[in-house]
Amino acid sequence: MKVVCSKSNLISGLQIVSKAVPSKTTMSILECILVDATEGVIKFIANDMELGIQTIVEGNIEERGYIAIDAKIFVDIVRKLPDNAVTIESDSSNKVIISCEKAKFNLIGRKGDDFTYLPSIEKVDGVSVSQFTLRNIIQQTIFSISENDANKMMAGELFEVDGDILKLVSLDGHRISIRKVKLSEEYSYKKVIVPGKALSEISKILGDSTEKIVHIYFTDKHILFEFDNTVVVSRLIEGEYFSIDQMLSSDYETKMSINRKELLDCIDRATLLVKEGDKKPVIISITDTNMELKIKSTIGSMDEVIDIDKQGKDLMIGFNPKFLIDALRAIEDEVVDIYLVNPKAPCFIRDKESTYTYLVLPVNFTTVD
Amino acid sequence: MKVVCSKSNLISGLQIVSKAVPSKTTMSILECILVDATEGVIKFIANDMELGIQTIVEGNIEERGYIAIDAKIFVDIVRKLPDNAVTIESDSSNKVIISCEKAKFNLIGRKGDDFTYLPSIEKVDGVSVSQFTLRNIIQQTIFSISENDANKMMAGELFEVDGDILKLVSLDGHRISIRKVKLSEEYSYKKVIVPGKALSEISKILGDSTEKIVHIYFTDKHILFEFDNTVVVSRLIEGEYFSIDQMLSSDYETKMSINRKELLDCIDRATLLVKEGDKKPVIISITDTNMELKIKSTIGSMDEVIDIDKQGKDLMIGFNPKFLIDALRAIEDEVVDIYLVNPKAPCFIRDKESTYTYLVLPVNFTTVD
Repeated sequence: MKVVCSKSNLISGLQIVSKAVPSKTTMSILECILVDATEGVIKFIANDMELGIQTIVEGNIEERGYIAIDAKIFVDIVRKLPDNAVTIESDSSNKVIISCEKAKFNLIGRKGDDFTYLPSIEKVDGVSVSQFTLRNIIQQTIFSISENDANKMMAGELFEVDGDILKLVSLDGHRISIRKVKLSEEYSYKKVIVPGKALSEISKILGDSTEKIVHIYFTDKHILFEFDNTVVVSRLIEGEYFSIDQMLSSDYETKMSINRKELLDCIDRATLLVKEGDKKPVIISITDTNMELKIKSTIGSMDEVIDIDKQGKDLMIGFNPKFLIDALRAIEDEVVDIYLVNPKAPCFIRDKESTYTYLVLPVNFTTVD
Repeated sequence: MKVVCSKSNLISGLQIVSKAVPSKTTMSILECILVDATEGVIKFIANDMELGIQTIVEGNIEERGYIAIDAKIFVDIVRKLPDNAVTIESDSSNKVIISCEKAKFNLIGRKGDDFTYLPSIEKVDGVSVSQFTLRNIIQQTIFSISENDANKMMAGELFEVDGDILKLVSLDGHRISIRKVKLSEEYSYKKVIVPGKALSEISKILGDSTEKIVHIYFTDKHILFEFDNTVVVSRLIEGEYFSIDQMLSSDYETKMSINRKELLDCIDRATLLVKEGDKKPVIISITDTNMELKIKSTIGSMDEVIDIDKQGKDLMIGFNPKFLIDALRAIEDEVVDIYLVNPKAPCFIRDKESTYTYLVLPVNFTTVD
């Protein structure tokens, strides 16, 4: 095989497929990127058997062939080459030469045959959404998955298409994050659980264009995302997702409207009194015109008052500050509405149209003086 | 005590004195910053008993007094406050209140009496140099001190003033870095060994102004740097520094002039084949019109050719790539002259005026095919 690509095209392609290279594995072939120039285009593929990414890199094929190259070394070498045309050659004994200007690297590659290609998925009955929108709703929900939980469902997100609504849901036992977006057309009903790792990596590759479209296809076992010159395939998590509808309620006893940034900055300040691993709650006292936030730890105490618009009863309630921070960071609105019932019931941060709903469970607290 | 300062003034002051707060210590008072408003100005002081820094922070004193506050918490709190006037209050029971707008932090401080002030040093017979120059020559030599060596002298730099020349020297047993700058006037002879840690921290505080001056004063035990509103005092390392003159030689068998950036990039590329802890040398073959650089490791091999101007004999010699990289990065010249004798003798990278001299010892190597 012999291909020639510009350094910048190589870097872009490598950065995309590297997202599917596992950082730790006992199967060294999974640590490789396959360069496949057998079919008239140069494809880079990485596949950790859960998540697979393939992208097309522009360049010239001088001799067809394919070779697997250790991803880390491949990326390191290309990154440090001069900004010029890079030649990648391999021979029948899997020797690889990467050269650029007067620099020449010799490596030992792996036979392309050892590499596992992406599963073949029929592209029918797909769903389309802009790159910008998909990236946003992933980033606005991904933080409340739970990686290390015994319940494997919590490591993924519910990905549901109902008519012209795409809904993403994640939950970790302490909170639920829900985002809904309207699609440009109606689709048949779909409901799958996508591993958080796959969504997280896709969100890093997706651009911020509202014009460029991601096409999404589904099978029983896999989900496929196609955009630009890239295809991402992830295994699905099998099983039935949690029935979240019964956890959601629109009843409330107290509603406060508050400046999001003021509240976020205030909670953020409070957390610096909390050492890692310490579970000190912030305690919020809601009265008619303002809320007072207090925290007390071994380091010291803090209190701060923020003006609010309030309906309903006065209330004192405690929260894990991190959960409030995550939710407030995922919202763009200047003012947020927070709905509460009592010190033991979940609070809801949601907008009127329910494009976002963040449920956060409160924590017990002993009153701070 | 009660003082009011702008957040930005506080941040600047805290960043400066924090450099003298030890990251690990068994004496908790050393982890504090003293706020001293007893004498009409607001002084911040930190002192780890080797290195002490004092700076004046602009602000209003509403009640004189002094209090020591845990540095980490102090910095964290101020950094997260709104960008507005910050009030710092303490009472006779060492309670500290830091407040800004509606946010109020309560902490327990430490009695100012427990704190050790900077040693008093008479400001006579000082040396003056611009902040820019001092910062540069520190950064251009500091990398070749040796922190963990049994020889405590190697953890410091020789700081010598001879007439109107200021010379800094560092060495670690494998290399020597020497920088000389001309001062604007002649001074009496001075020769001290300054701990590398002190120089490193000072170089981070110094600005890049060629107009602003640093005044330097010496005693038998201490060196004092005074600039802007800041005073830095460091203990000196006692003892006689190495006689480096006998290690320096102007004889050579081979001289090559080479583009610094090309050589640096080439060695930098080569090092990616070297895993950490592995001691693979780069091997340089110098012939009449070019030099070839080779490296071979378990990962693969690389070779690259660079055009040079050469005088004298052909030569093949091996180096630890890191040592060449450090020296080449500390030089600004577009073309550098490298002087060599044989594969066992040190090489010298130096300019004609000897404003810089970097000596690097070669390493043994077995020829790469």
